[in-house]
Amino acid sequence: MKYALAVEYDGRAFYGWQIQKDLPTVQAALEAALSQMAGEPVQVHAAGRTDAGVHGARQIVHFETDVNRPLTAWVRGVNSFLPDTVAVLWAAPVPDAFHARFSAFARHYRYLLLNHPVRPALWSGRMGWAFNDLDFAAMQAAAVHLLGQHDFSSFRAAECQAKTPVKTMTRAHIQKEGSLIICDFSADAFLHHMVRNIMGALLHVGKGHESPEWMADLILARDRTSAPPTFMPDGLYLAGVSYPPEFGLASEPVSRHGLI
Amino acid sequence: MKYALAVEYDGRAFYGWQIQKDLPTVQAALEAALSQMAGEPVQVHAAGRTDAGVHGARQIVHFETDVNRPLTAWVRGVNSFLPDTVAVLWAAPVPDAFHARFSAFARHYRYLLLNHPVRPALWSGRMGWAFNDLDFAAMQAAAVHLLGQHDFSSFRAAECQAKTPVKTMTRAHIQKEGSLIICDFSADAFLHHMVRNIMGALLHVGKGHESPEWMADLILARDRTSAPPTFMPDGLYLAGVSYPPEFGLASEPVSRHGLI
Repeated sequence: MKYALAVEYDGRAFYGWQIQKDLPTVQAALEAALSQMAGEPVQVHAAGRTDAGVHGARQIVHFETDVNRPLTAWVRGVNSFLPDTVAVLWAAPVPDAFHARFSAFARHYRYLLLNHPVRPALWSGRMGWAFNDLDFAAMQAAAVHLLGQHDFSSFRAAECQAKTPVKTMTRAHIQKEGSLIICDFSADAFLHHMVRNIMGALLHVGKGHESPEWMADLILARDRTSAPPTFMPDGLYLAGVSYPPEFGLASEPVSRHGLI
Repeated sequence: MKYALAVEYDGRAFYGWQIQKDLPTVQAALEAALSQMAGEPVQVHAAGRTDAGVHGARQIVHFETDVNRPLTAWVRGVNSFLPDTVAVLWAAPVPDAFHARFSAFARHYRYLLLNHPVRPALWSGRMGWAFNDLDFAAMQAAAVHLLGQHDFSSFRAAECQAKTPVKTMTRAHIQKEGSLIICDFSADAFLHHMVRNIMGALLHVGKGHESPEWMADLILARDRTSAPPTFMPDGLYLAGVSYPPEFGLASEPVSRHGLI
């Protein structure tokens, strides 16, 4: 049987998603809990491998097992074996053709940015921070240039293993609530560090260093060295993953607790 | 000179507000940072002493010092000496007559309660959790009975040091956003564990164990043993403190990042 799971986690407690020898990672914690429930080794495949310090609101994974357990075992049972900062939100049987990574047609990321003179404390590690008063309208205007199909090499980390830097951004929406700037990005797929690099560029515009139109030039440059530094991971959340309807999974991610 | 400060903190990292020998507390961290900035010992007095695990969104304190520093020293300077999970939001000079605790005419608490089959992970330690599907309308109806002046002995912890259990509740408002139940309480003052005990009673009603009207009987009983157990501290935030206008401090607390 093949199952899909939605997983929520606080990225601060882990060295990223992917298994690393002798370091706590979300994948390692999840595989340990699933293996304990199954009574045999279980391997998971995730829709997106988040970096160290990046959070998961609705990461999607799949795994295969011959062990027959009721669905609640893969949720409540597995949760009882997981650390406080990771939880399985739901489990669903999926057809053999399903692959958490390769079946996804869109990924959704949200970046929470606190634009306030004082750093976040209650939200330490869970919001990015900019103390300069940012030009929000300029950032909105800059973000529009990201929409559509582009070669995103200017926002691609050197160690990125994607086959192509050409991705289609279907959403690049920025809203403001008080001192909080909420940035939503949806694309068919994202390059390594792509959202954090885009955030770095948006902040550059927000600080008035460049015009919104510079974002279009930056994309055309297709050169990582033209772009500002990678922004902090603290405020980044994998907010959801969309799959074709034949797999029967909720395509539009729904937050279970405001903000994310 | 006397100064008021607004302080934000994540209660998980501390054994409550108040100084305790050899244990990390918010007061100890704040006094250490202020003393470092002042170059002499500084003592603070808080509007409300929060329990272990309870968070501060806008705790108000005052301190006195003969040391002359620009206001930014008491904000940015002090923040550079504080741990990541505590920050001073603003500093303001106040008249000698001001006392963070005794001048306050209202305290505001918010409780974030996740009503979902799966425990919070991303919000571990920062939201209360109830997995049963709660009767939200019944909880709202029950909360109304809290409004006005009452003897709140049924919600008073044994170790409470308040002079009187009679307090005036001016706000008891419950709203729902998806799986999140947001409970706001304002009163002239709160007894020890009062909000957590009220939450325990509201959950009792929400689970259908008692009718909303039982809340009125419970208040009249004036007996802690009649009431359900103290609810977990995880979702509780000191959201603000109100002072008379002559002190020139913002009376209505404003959130700098949605939710709290």
